[in-house]
Amino acid sequence: MIETDILIIGAGPTGLFAVFEAGLLQLKCHLIDALGQPGGQCSEIYPKKPIYDIPGFPEILAGELVDNLMEQIKAFEPGFTLGERAETIKKLEDGTFIVTTNKGTRHHAPVVAIAGGLGSFEPRKPLLEDLQKYEDNGVAYLIRDPEVYRDKKVVISGGGDSALDWSIYLADIASQVTLVHRRNEFRGALDSVEKVRSLKEQGKIDLITPAEVIGLQGEKVLESLVIAKSNGHENIVLKADAYIPLFGLSPKLGPIADWGLEIEKNAIKVNNALDYQTNIPGIYAIGDVNTYPGKLKLILCGFHEATLMCQSAYQRIHPDKKYVMKYTTVGGVQGFDGTKKEAPKAVVKAIE
Amino acid sequence: MIETDILIIGAGPTGLFAVFEAGLLQLKCHLIDALGQPGGQCSEIYPKKPIYDIPGFPEILAGELVDNLMEQIKAFEPGFTLGERAETIKKLEDGTFIVTTNKGTRHHAPVVAIAGGLGSFEPRKPLLEDLQKYEDNGVAYLIRDPEVYRDKKVVISGGGDSALDWSIYLADIASQVTLVHRRNEFRGALDSVEKVRSLKEQGKIDLITPAEVIGLQGEKVLESLVIAKSNGHENIVLKADAYIPLFGLSPKLGPIADWGLEIEKNAIKVNNALDYQTNIPGIYAIGDVNTYPGKLKLILCGFHEATLMCQSAYQRIHPDKKYVMKYTTVGGVQGFDGTKKEAPKAVVKAIE
Ligand SMILES: Cc1cc2nc3c(=O)[nH]c(=O)nc-3n(C[C@H](O)[C@H](O)[C@H](O)COP(=O)(O)OP(=O)(O)OC[C@H]3O[C@@H](n4cnc5c(N)ncnc54)[C@H](O)[C@@H]3O)c2cc1C
Ligand SMILES: Cc1cc2nc3c(=O)[nH]c(=O)nc-3n(C[C@H](O)[C@H](O)[C@H](O)COP(=O)(O)OP(=O)(O)OC[C@H]3O[C@@H](n4cnc5c(N)ncnc54)[C@H](O)[C@@H]3O)c2cc1C
Repeated sequence: MIETDILIIGAGPTGLFAVFEAGLLQLKCHLIDALGQPGGQCSEIYPKKPIYDIPGFPEILAGELVDNLMEQIKAFEPGFTLGERAETIKKLEDGTFIVTTNKGTRHHAPVVAIAGGLGSFEPRKPLLEDLQKYEDNGVAYLIRDPEVYRDKKVVISGGGDSALDWSIYLADIASQVTLVHRRNEFRGALDSVEKVRSLKEQGKIDLITPAEVIGLQGEKVLESLVIAKSNGHENIVLKADAYIPLFGLSPKLGPIADWGLEIEKNAIKVNNALDYQTNIPGIYAIGDVNTYPGKLKLILCGFHEATLMCQSAYQRIHPDKKYVMKYTTVGGVQGFDGTKKEAPKAVVKAIE
Repeated sequence: MIETDILIIGAGPTGLFAVFEAGLLQLKCHLIDALGQPGGQCSEIYPKKPIYDIPGFPEILAGELVDNLMEQIKAFEPGFTLGERAETIKKLEDGTFIVTTNKGTRHHAPVVAIAGGLGSFEPRKPLLEDLQKYEDNGVAYLIRDPEVYRDKKVVISGGGDSALDWSIYLADIASQVTLVHRRNEFRGALDSVEKVRSLKEQGKIDLITPAEVIGLQGEKVLESLVIAKSNGHENIVLKADAYIPLFGLSPKLGPIADWGLEIEKNAIKVNNALDYQTNIPGIYAIGDVNTYPGKLKLILCGFHEATLMCQSAYQRIHPDKKYVMKYTTVGGVQGFDGTKKEAPKAVVKAIE
């Protein structure tokens, strides 16, 4: 059982910044995310695109913003349960919560902050017979640890940035990378497309287009794939240790929708006049996942909501203490890892 | 008469960021500030100190944050009325407002956003006979344009960062700089104290301590100062073209308190459940200057409030239009100066 002060569901920018604000209040956080990496939409959908409306950054790449947030919260040592979906919640008699993931990992905390964005990112799966049998036995929809594919024969399907970028990345690790796409045209960043072209010329990536994977074969684990070419030629049977269809992830509010929270337009209603708490005391909703009159699904709004939420969480966790806010410039930042950041003090000195 | 869409009172971080959000909605802004430079508390009180809780910046100097915000809003060409205090407001029959400063500058806008922080920064003045007579005739409490002092004899009073830093700055411009302080000890950044010490040794700054300016002399304009040394020695009479007492600025809500707005604990009550509007429709209050249940006087909160306020202002200005929000990453940023920032588009390309 993982124990923490604030259990955050969703490691997008909102959930990440909540760790910082909680840390200032000396509260520990643990984050659950269905994705293999932190950053939410920023990491999954547009890591290499610039955002222009983060205050103080005339321009910042979404991926850079996530890196900065990770750096900012480092001293508060957040825990992560990645690649798992928060599935069920149970309120105990003492008012605390147990949240269990689809893989059975259990988390216990007095406060739950749902920072689930548009929902848990779920892969779009190909329609293939016996697909489920091979899941985790050769078939994967997201890559948590690329080393798993060292010296393996890997087939990737898809025509977007993920398919291009992972093909490039794995070309150096796997013994063979084959990229299958149902069109000749790929849609992605210009430099990714160019890179795949050049790796193909060097014989480091095999390209099969226009084509589709139509069958999976293997006794217990995946052994080979059946690939149909669109020009009607004979099917290809390709030996493969791994098949990674990257057809995009689509967010689904999913199990959270059944937690007894007030839902409106696929989002969780919160009390924006006070602390972004939901109809269940102790459960908050912040960032894209919540809704209230005038709500804007913007990153900077999630930052504010996370900050006010933490104050309220503090009161819930420490009903007898009164927290007196100190500016970071004045009080510094005291990390859980023993580090301390502090503004240089003014000196009082005579000039002779 | 200065005409604009949103008239912002206060050019602190909140007011500055409001310019950006308004610009995204194609609304023009003009800012009034009592200080000589934009940035509010960040520029006036702690420009060289690090802030640790701006989301995405593990650490940023307050002055840098202001520079970044100025860069971010540049394309939206904000107008500035600096060194003047917004004094009176009048609501016209058509629902628009006229705001007049203490120097008589008039501004006309359909929406007023008060981003006045802790209030308009007002100088702490020395208790000297005839002080008022010499104001703007040799005596000044803030420096808007240092060039005014070129080749002049300048006396500065004070023992903090402003007194130290302006003495250093003017040492290169004025013909003579004298720094008078009632103690031997100065209180400021170590490098400022050291710099003054070395300029004193080079004969570029005269130091008179412990001492106080006790009289001002001159027919119509300031001609000389009377300085009393604490050791009881005879008074010094020093020729001077300018006297700049820098005893700190203290914020005062001031005239805004009489505008008919609901005030609570020296701050303006707003509807935080919707759009940060005050009890007077068309007047909003954002940032440190407002109050509501759970309010935190933090920069990141001002950013959020400014953003929601602009949406509401848009509806007030364009009651018939419906604004559909576009992410900056997707829609880009279209400056009023003709510039356009835009994310690189994905390409659709065949790989042969
Ligand atoms: C193309 C694009 C451009 C954008 N441009 C901008 C822009 O310019 N400016 C701007 O402010 N915003 C922009 N946005 C929106 C911005 O990305 C979102 O507002 C932001 O990501 C919301 O952050 P969040 O942390 O609330 O949620 P998210 O980033 O959506 O993160 C939520 C996370 O929660 C996880 N999750 C949800 N439910 C569960 C569960 N049950 N179990 C486990 N994990 C779960 C998800 O997997 C996800 O990783 C853009 C979005 C897109 C798609
Ligand atoms: C030493 C110190 C350290 C701090 N550290 C942090 C920190 O670490 N993190 C954080 O988030 N915050 C911190 N703060 C607080 C932060 O600076 C404020 O929250 C922020 O400046 C508020 O911005 P604002 O734009 O709302 O108001 P302000 O910055 O106060 O700006 C308001 C402006 O309005 C002007 N004004 C007001 N009334 C009038 C009028 N009638 N006419 C003309 N002009 C007027 C004022 O002159 C002023 O320039 C700190 C503050 C101080 C003093």
